Amino acid sequence: MELFTYYRSTSSYRVRIALALKGLEYQAKPVNLLKGEQRGEDYLALNPQGRVPALRTDDGALLVQSPAIIEYLEEAYPQPALLPTCAKTRAQVRGVAAIIGCDIHPLHNVSVLNQLRQLGHDETQVNQWIGHWISQGLAAIEQLIGDDGFCFGATPGLADIYLIPQLYAAERFNIDLGGYPRIRRVAALAEQHPAFQQAHPARQPDTPN
Amino acid sequence: MELFTYYRSTSSYRVRIALALKGLEYQAKPVNLLKGEQRGEDYLALNPQGRVPALRTDDGALLVQSPAIIEYLEEAYPQPALLPTCAKTRAQVRGVAAIIGCDIHPLHNVSVLNQLRQLGHDETQVNQWIGHWISQGLAAIEQLIGDDGFCFGATPGLADIYLIPQLYAAERFNIDLGGYPRIRRVAALAEQHPAFQQAHPARQPDTPN
Repeated sequence: MELFTYYRSTSSYRVRIALALKGLEYQAKPVNLLKGEQRGEDYLALNPQGRVPALRTDDGALLVQSPAIIEYLEEAYPQPALLPTCAKTRAQVRGVAAIIGCDIHPLHNVSVLNQLRQLGHDETQVNQWIGHWISQGLAAIEQLIGDDGFCFGATPGLADIYLIPQLYAAERFNIDLGGYPRIRRVAALAEQHPAFQQAHPARQPDTPN
Repeated sequence: MELFTYYRSTSSYRVRIALALKGLEYQAKPVNLLKGEQRGEDYLALNPQGRVPALRTDDGALLVQSPAIIEYLEEAYPQPALLPTCAKTRAQVRGVAAIIGCDIHPLHNVSVLNQLRQLGHDETQVNQWIGHWISQGLAAIEQLIGDDGFCFGATPGLADIYLIPQLYAAERFNIDLGGYPRIRRVAALAEQHPAFQQAHPARQPDTPN
């Protein structure tokens, strides 16, 4: 498999964790978002939305959007499972993933922040915007995840795959995590976990020296 | 089942279509977003994120976030299926759903528009913001869906469940759909389909007279 990725992209980071948790090998194809490579002709021919991540499967299909890619990995490579077996519990796990994927991250995506800058907002206002959405989302998640282990149990799964990259973004934007002890517990566990370490933005082929 | 819903909420509309396509009965529990009922104590005790939709299952579990609720319905009530059987094709369908669920709709959610107004933007600027994100997303989707039938084939499925409510929002915000013939074809088919008719914002118990 080939993964079109950018080291600091939150949604690429999610897919990297899923691949690492499942022990799947892949070739990283870095797309430099700062240089605008995602809007280059070559990349747009592959992925008309011009975003990362995108996954090229072993038989050549190109899959886009991290939620779709991760569900694909779960279906095509079921072990170890990223989701529990009970439909209701699966929905609870997917609910936390969706709070991050639909209600937090889209609002501080680089394209959105650039749009705010074009509207004349300075970096203080942009950072307040980011802080508002991240804090609001994390406060809900703190109430929805479990009391010990990862978000939902002793082993990491879909919710953790979304949460850890979101916390990396929270740290970049100086969000205070003091009020979220459950979330901090999950973060501490992930920090020690080889799959999360391997997927970290600091350790990618396109990470600047 | 009980569905906490608001007639004009894009993501509630998605879940209503999924329920209707599967022929599932439910009791609508309207939450008036204009009156701020989603931030009332009673509702927050149910759903700490204070958003709609939320689904109470027959055995009392409360599920939040439309992507998670729809995947739950697909798993708990598999027929008629909203997703194809092949993992790669499922990923392509989910990819289109995620473009809408993660890259279009979150940017014109009412809470985001209110945040823009608080930052001092007038309605012209707010409408330009909305138009930018909807047009950008629909342009990508136009290239990803099929040449006839619904988004992916003769019967409606997950991508249509996301697309039709997004088009309802596009219409509210006067987005020109002239450049998207495939999308307009899907919209015309859905308009004639009983499940999409039943789920429409104009026909809900909380629709104003």
